[in-house]
Amino acid sequence: MPGRKLFPTKYGHFSPDGREYIIVNPRTPRPWINVISNGDYGLTISQTGSGYSWRTHAQLNRLTRWEQDLLKDDWGKYIYITDENGRSWSAGWKPVGGDPSDYRCRHGFGYSAIESTHYGIRTVLTVFVPNDEPCEVWMLELHNLSRRKRRLRLTTYLEWCLGAAPDWHREFHRTFMETEYDKTANAILARKRLWEIPTARGHWNANWDYVGFHGSSRAPRSFDTDKESFLGRYGSPRMPAALDKATLAKRVGKWLDPIASLRNDITLMPGESRTVCYTLGAAGSQEEAGTLARKYHSLAAAERSLAAVRERWENLLGTVSVRTPDPALDLMVNRWLKYQAIAGRLWARTAYYQTGGAYGFRDQLQDSQVFLPIDPGRTREQILLHARHQFKDGSVYHWWHPITEIGLHNNMSDNLLWLPFVVANYLAETAEDALLQVRQPFLDSGEETATLFDHCHRAINRVWERRSPRGLPLIGAGDWNDGLSAVGLDMKGESVWLGHFLHRILLDFAGIAARIGDHARATEYRGRADVLCRALNEEGWDGEWYWRATKDSGEKLGSKENTEGRIYLNAQTWAVLADVAVGARSEQVLNAVEQ
Amino acid sequence: MPGRKLFPTKYGHFSPDGREYIIVNPRTPRPWINVISNGDYGLTISQTGSGYSWRTHAQLNRLTRWEQDLLKDDWGKYIYITDENGRSWSAGWKPVGGDPSDYRCRHGFGYSAIESTHYGIRTVLTVFVPNDEPCEVWMLELHNLSRRKRRLRLTTYLEWCLGAAPDWHREFHRTFMETEYDKTANAILARKRLWEIPTARGHWNANWDYVGFHGSSRAPRSFDTDKESFLGRYGSPRMPAALDKATLAKRVGKWLDPIASLRNDITLMPGESRTVCYTLGAAGSQEEAGTLARKYHSLAAAERSLAAVRERWENLLGTVSVRTPDPALDLMVNRWLKYQAIAGRLWARTAYYQTGGAYGFRDQLQDSQVFLPIDPGRTREQILLHARHQFKDGSVYHWWHPITEIGLHNNMSDNLLWLPFVVANYLAETAEDALLQVRQPFLDSGEETATLFDHCHRAINRVWERRSPRGLPLIGAGDWNDGLSAVGLDMKGESVWLGHFLHRILLDFAGIAARIGDHARATEYRGRADVLCRALNEEGWDGEWYWRATKDSGEKLGSKENTEGRIYLNAQTWAVLADVAVGARSEQVLNAVEQ
Repeated sequence: MPGRKLFPTKYGHFSPDGREYIIVNPRTPRPWINVISNGDYGLTISQTGSGYSWRTHAQLNRLTRWEQDLLKDDWGKYIYITDENGRSWSAGWKPVGGDPSDYRCRHGFGYSAIESTHYGIRTVLTVFVPNDEPCEVWMLELHNLSRRKRRLRLTTYLEWCLGAAPDWHREFHRTFMETEYDKTANAILARKRLWEIPTARGHWNANWDYVGFHGSSRAPRSFDTDKESFLGRYGSPRMPAALDKATLAKRVGKWLDPIASLRNDITLMPGESRTVCYTLGAAGSQEEAGTLARKYHSLAAAERSLAAVRERWENLLGTVSVRTPDPALDLMVNRWLKYQAIAGRLWARTAYYQTGGAYGFRDQLQDSQVFLPIDPGRTREQILLHARHQFKDGSVYHWWHPITEIGLHNNMSDNLLWLPFVVANYLAETAEDALLQVRQPFLDSGEETATLFDHCHRAINRVWERRSPRGLPLIGAGDWNDGLSAVGLDMKGESVWLGHFLHRILLDFAGIAARIGDHARATEYRGRADVLCRALNEEGWDGEWYWRATKDSGEKLGSKENTEGRIYLNAQTWAVLADVAVGARSEQVLNAVEQ
Repeated sequence: MPGRKLFPTKYGHFSPDGREYIIVNPRTPRPWINVISNGDYGLTISQTGSGYSWRTHAQLNRLTRWEQDLLKDDWGKYIYITDENGRSWSAGWKPVGGDPSDYRCRHGFGYSAIESTHYGIRTVLTVFVPNDEPCEVWMLELHNLSRRKRRLRLTTYLEWCLGAAPDWHREFHRTFMETEYDKTANAILARKRLWEIPTARGHWNANWDYVGFHGSSRAPRSFDTDKESFLGRYGSPRMPAALDKATLAKRVGKWLDPIASLRNDITLMPGESRTVCYTLGAAGSQEEAGTLARKYHSLAAAERSLAAVRERWENLLGTVSVRTPDPALDLMVNRWLKYQAIAGRLWARTAYYQTGGAYGFRDQLQDSQVFLPIDPGRTREQILLHARHQFKDGSVYHWWHPITEIGLHNNMSDNLLWLPFVVANYLAETAEDALLQVRQPFLDSGEETATLFDHCHRAINRVWERRSPRGLPLIGAGDWNDGLSAVGLDMKGESVWLGHFLHRILLDFAGIAARIGDHARATEYRGRADVLCRALNEEGWDGEWYWRATKDSGEKLGSKENTEGRIYLNAQTWAVLADVAVGARSEQVLNAVEQ
């Protein structure tokens, strides 16, 4: 059914092949964004054209300034178009926010495109991140739909961040930035002499290690890197003072409030089309910045890079697909959920609502299971990365920052168990028992390494050792329900859910140990599983399920005796129970969930 | 000379009596602000009417949202005025930023007033913080200068922060806020169930301890606390959607992006004037919020509070004055420098460029000396407060946060010495040697206390013990020049400046010890001063001053042998040298500085 709109609402629909989500009204209830990343460089882009860019870590190494505001959504990297009558609009809707005669935002796998028409000029702005290059490309197609010759000024605009975000002490930080214009690359370069991240010696008087660049495929007629001359004093990106000027101020150097703006003048005959290509990136050196900027002076190079991005995603997402009676389920499971898990969760680790950049010990291990049916080698890499972020006592960094390797070592009680959980699932998928013998260090072991099997054992053992007098695991600073971050800080509170989780892992690892010939450990794990099962059934179960009680009679929590044990039987627990067998009563659990 | 403009520039001038700085053009080169505080509650206000408010700590307990941006200066608490023709402007210029037919911003002691005229309506917006109340008052006078009856809508607007700033994770934090409208108080109330500051148990699941309120002296016709209905989706404070509506949406409760907006309708006959009074504050309870909001239903109460503010400042600033041949010096020394030291540095501890709220061990001790000729009891209070933020080993918190009492304990090498330095200056001014016997605890001493003399000794002794093999003090993580924060981290680098400073303090405390009969210590201090003096003269002086060399011959640092010892002879050192006698050569130093 070519041309059919899949799952249409008043704001948008999927494309007929399901490979794009197409927004047809820029005023969506909240910003609807695409998180685009190649695993190192990344950006977010909303249907208004707003968003931010980073390399490696979206908070420690953010390239452009941005403020979270779901209502205004007015921070980003923008292109203004001004016509011969002095009318200005934005290629991506914001910040000018006019009334385009048509508008579509197409979020695809690895790219977004915003199409709009203003005053007879149609533009298509396609934004993507090339595979394996620390930059993004903006391809701006312009089509003159009117019957007269049109003279257009194109003006780009972004504010440099060049390091840690949020840069709430921005007026201090900007004094460490310096810009220049590289004529051979048609590009503005930006550097910073301060990076507010801790160094090995404990201070943060370090250089930002990169060279920011913003280039154009056409030699700009003028440029500016000074926000004051660009916006005008007390001005606003909604309508910068510079749009009224024939040329930009060409200010570069130190002590500015540094931005990047390039100006191209374009003349289009009636019916004529042209494309201009812009780059933005964080290179490792001035040479690399120039190389990347010059590469995309070629529109053909940009087209090839975009095709390569599409191909990579097709290879990743096209590996396994299901067909069910529910086409919505197929659409989400076959491509979109996988895309979001990989691009948003594993590679970018940031978005709009929660801006991040760190690795969560639990989060990215969980998420990496998306690769099990696609490319299990990537799950394996994630397992080994997380194993290296474990301590010798089995505890782990709850999260850690790439770049600084600083992490949070807390009493969260479930995070460490996700290592054996995901290892068991990896083995179930791949049967690669040899992985258990791969050696990795601990955070506090120096050069000393241990097998992955030992890493898993230490995690299991640590949770086992931290049980209450009646044999239930302690919840500590929270379990999978990490909103319960204060109930167990005194190491008294228990988690029934954590008991279920540990029980499943003990059984799995009893099987694994038996399979690799470690019968002592297999016996130990089975014995522990039995002990835990009894404690769970005696202390965490009174023969009557809370949700049934509330469902059937409307009773509230606490209205019956002995309800403490049931506090963790929440939605998360139900989801996991469906996957966890608790001894003889597992069938009951599954039946309950299925109903 | 009544009416004479003192020290006029194109942007402004002092009032004839020197008690106000009057800005005549809202487009000053950068925001020119007044930091207004009563010692607990405070606000900043720029000549555009922008700024933020807080109680006790401008970062941990900020009442309203604000983003630092010296060019846009577009965050604040605003009043819109809309006339019968639908034209809107701002009582303080921003955010509408129109072209008033006249404009003046008068920054005074404890208040600011912005006067402007738009379309025949003259407004005077006077903003102040009452003495000893946790709130601010906005008195808005309206004058109809036109010849016809005018119907005006007044609409206030602010975004709640209610806790820690920057609230970069704002979309998470806003979900913990709740608003309501208290009809009897003509006021919006706002609460928050999360305060991202550490509690005694180490987590931050704590309530915000206050009730925010925003009230009006006239019963509002309508109100709103929802940014979405007020601004409109993807709207902007420059021209909110609500200004076009006859009534505001009256949305209150949870899950909003919470703001406060009150709407009053006012009719003014030709020549008629009216005043409306608004409050904003952070009360300790709903009852206190209501009491304060209702108090300022009375314009007379507001006038009385403003008069009391003026009186307090007159009492503080009018105590001592100098008359010199330079009226600019007199103007600054007699009132403005004292005002800024007290309001900005001691009470508010925040501003525009550097937003703060903490106490710097060094900073506020230094600043408290402003009170020595005015009200030395306040210097005394500051001395005792800082003594309580010292450790038993003599080291101190480099800074600490009121509210949480969390501090930074680092290897900065000069901070601790400011305690004996300021004590010596206090004694020189007051001769109150009894202060030395007042007992205070240390941070790590529990109930155990020690005399202030002992506190001072421990500071002196610690710096004395941390000297290099050649007898110069170690610079550690920086001395008074705290930009040199990495050169001495390995505890090898030396500070000649710190030696000068310690030498002066040793001599002062030798005299103090002798005066109070502690002759052993007096002898010890004098002996140490002699040893230090020899080391300084031998290792930190080569008979030729760097600044003279560069002044006379244009030589650069590093162009001569043995320049390492001279690196600290910078502008700060010169300023201190004028005040520090280094043994026999002090006269040379003073001569050099005087030239």
